Amino acid sequence: MARFNYLNAALLALTFQSTLAFTPTKLNSPRPTSLQVSATQPFSLDEYLLSKKGPIESALEASVKSRIPQTDKICESMSYSLMAGGKRIRPVLCLAACEMFGGTEEMAMPTAVALEMIHTMSLIHDDLPSMDNDDLRRGKPTNHVIYGEDVAILAGDAMLSTSFEHVARYTKGVSADKILDVIARMGKSVGAEGLAGGQVMDLECEGKPGTTLEDLKWIHIHKTATLLQVAVASGAVLGGASPSEVEACEKFAMNIGLAFQVADDILDVTASSEDLGKTAGKDEATDKTTYPKLLGLEESKAYARQLIDEAKECLAPFGDRAAPLLAIADYIVDRKN
Amino acid sequence: MARFNYLNAALLALTFQSTLAFTPTKLNSPRPTSLQVSATQPFSLDEYLLSKKGPIESALEASVKSRIPQTDKICESMSYSLMAGGKRIRPVLCLAACEMFGGTEEMAMPTAVALEMIHTMSLIHDDLPSMDNDDLRRGKPTNHVIYGEDVAILAGDAMLSTSFEHVARYTKGVSADKILDVIARMGKSVGAEGLAGGQVMDLECEGKPGTTLEDLKWIHIHKTATLLQVAVASGAVLGGASPSEVEACEKFAMNIGLAFQVADDILDVTASSEDLGKTAGKDEATDKTTYPKLLGLEESKAYARQLIDEAKECLAPFGDRAAPLLAIADYIVDRKN
Repeated sequence: MARFNYLNAALLALTFQSTLAFTPTKLNSPRPTSLQVSATQPFSLDEYLLSKKGPIESALEASVKSRIPQTDKICESMSYSLMAGGKRIRPVLCLAACEMFGGTEEMAMPTAVALEMIHTMSLIHDDLPSMDNDDLRRGKPTNHVIYGEDVAILAGDAMLSTSFEHVARYTKGVSADKILDVIARMGKSVGAEGLAGGQVMDLECEGKPGTTLEDLKWIHIHKTATLLQVAVASGAVLGGASPSEVEACEKFAMNIGLAFQVADDILDVTASSEDLGKTAGKDEATDKTTYPKLLGLEESKAYARQLIDEAKECLAPFGDRAAPLLAIADYIVDRKN
Repeated sequence: MARFNYLNAALLALTFQSTLAFTPTKLNSPRPTSLQVSATQPFSLDEYLLSKKGPIESALEASVKSRIPQTDKICESMSYSLMAGGKRIRPVLCLAACEMFGGTEEMAMPTAVALEMIHTMSLIHDDLPSMDNDDLRRGKPTNHVIYGEDVAILAGDAMLSTSFEHVARYTKGVSADKILDVIARMGKSVGAEGLAGGQVMDLECEGKPGTTLEDLKWIHIHKTATLLQVAVASGAVLGGASPSEVEACEKFAMNIGLAFQVADDILDVTASSEDLGKTAGKDEATDKTTYPKLLGLEESKAYARQLIDEAKECLAPFGDRAAPLLAIADYIVDRKN
């Protein structure tokens, strides 16, 4: 247990170092007296998510619609995975961040769609036989099971590429400079210092006994947290946030991104395949290094909770306007799948 | 032979329809009296390519340099394929088009790099066992043979994504609106109506007896011509071309793109594996529909030549400034690998 506590302390110190370095007084907005959403304006995440669901699903559907017979097959494959449900956390984070700074849903929707496309591409490619070899995703056969490996790879490529076209072509009411900022962030988030790099490190560490907490954190930041960070930061940029406000959003998102991954590791142990819509217990079976394995289950839960609390503190300067993002942060550790 | 001539005529009519619709008088520049490069200023493609080689290779190398130990593996894999030689036709087309309109090499270099990244990504993914299953590319083992399928897929994803970051972050001296225009073109060129869509159609038609000339043309336009078109059009946009000038460049590039593919089909029949740096005679072995199969070898050569002549006519309004692009057009059908 002595080793466990040491590891835990080291991990927490590593994680919170950057969070604590953040100085809210640099921001323009006054700091409210409480991190809680105002009691006079109760916020319902369910209602909020419901209000966003329709516009997001419509925009996603339109983005992969085939316009000529020759593209029917690839668009069907793209649509199969993009429209397979999912929590749409990245789009919602993007819209919520944009609105927190006074931007509109319309300003952020093309980026919200693009982020879900990128996420979906990463799932299609991760599920391939030469990667995680998963046959089940969100309770349905994975893309390559239906369309074949070749089409699945190409559908992922097309979705990744189209995501950038989508932002460049359809973002309205925002300066071109800000749109380029968003595209640069998106581009980096899938590259060597993003999703793909995190995944390669993950493959390298798989089953390797010497994998350290630092390795695990690097993998999770790049595989998961980076795209969530881009979702929130892009929304903030599009909504008109100042550089220091964007920075506060990035720190919020980095913490919820890590918490998201810790929660995923926990769910792999505690949830059923039915709840998850994918094979549960897979991490154990594949001898994957996870937070529950390194920290134990209860400590992992406490760690996820602490990450979320720290995340929420980053948004304190924005008061009630941060209500949707704060509620999403809570949802990330409390979710059942 | 009657059927052959009919097919050939139909194909030529299809191809030239859009080219002929182009009206040079719409352009601002005066039309020169000859399509040939001025005799007083002889142009050497070899010297031109040599002058571009150094800056392009340096910029490519820098674009995939690992900056932290965790990304060494993925960057090595990206670099392995990106730096494996190749003719760099897309970067050169982009720089030449930019300079034709008075732009500088610096303005277009990030886009030139991005286009080669996209091209390389498409080669890595095309070579995968579940796609063309090729072990040899440019005389070297393919990416997945060296790094494994999983890393090869991820290196491709990272390269595609980084290409957009590269343009957004590093293009200088050009308005943000123009950079967004370039990004939208690049994004579309790999999507359902670009590379990936062309490849899916190609897979669907493979070995199918009913594949028509129209199918073949659609596949080649989307698999090959579109990215060359984006190379020239993006260079033109960055260099300050007017919309009608960009349109002329697009028509030029569409024709050389088709000619490029016809030449590729011809080389697969006539060249050795040693010359090609990849397995020759593969189209015959895989029962692939090609121009030589549909038109015969000699007619395919004549068709490629005619496409190039038509392409060059599109650049007539730009006079001597078009010399590099005109020489590249000739090179495309005259090349030996």
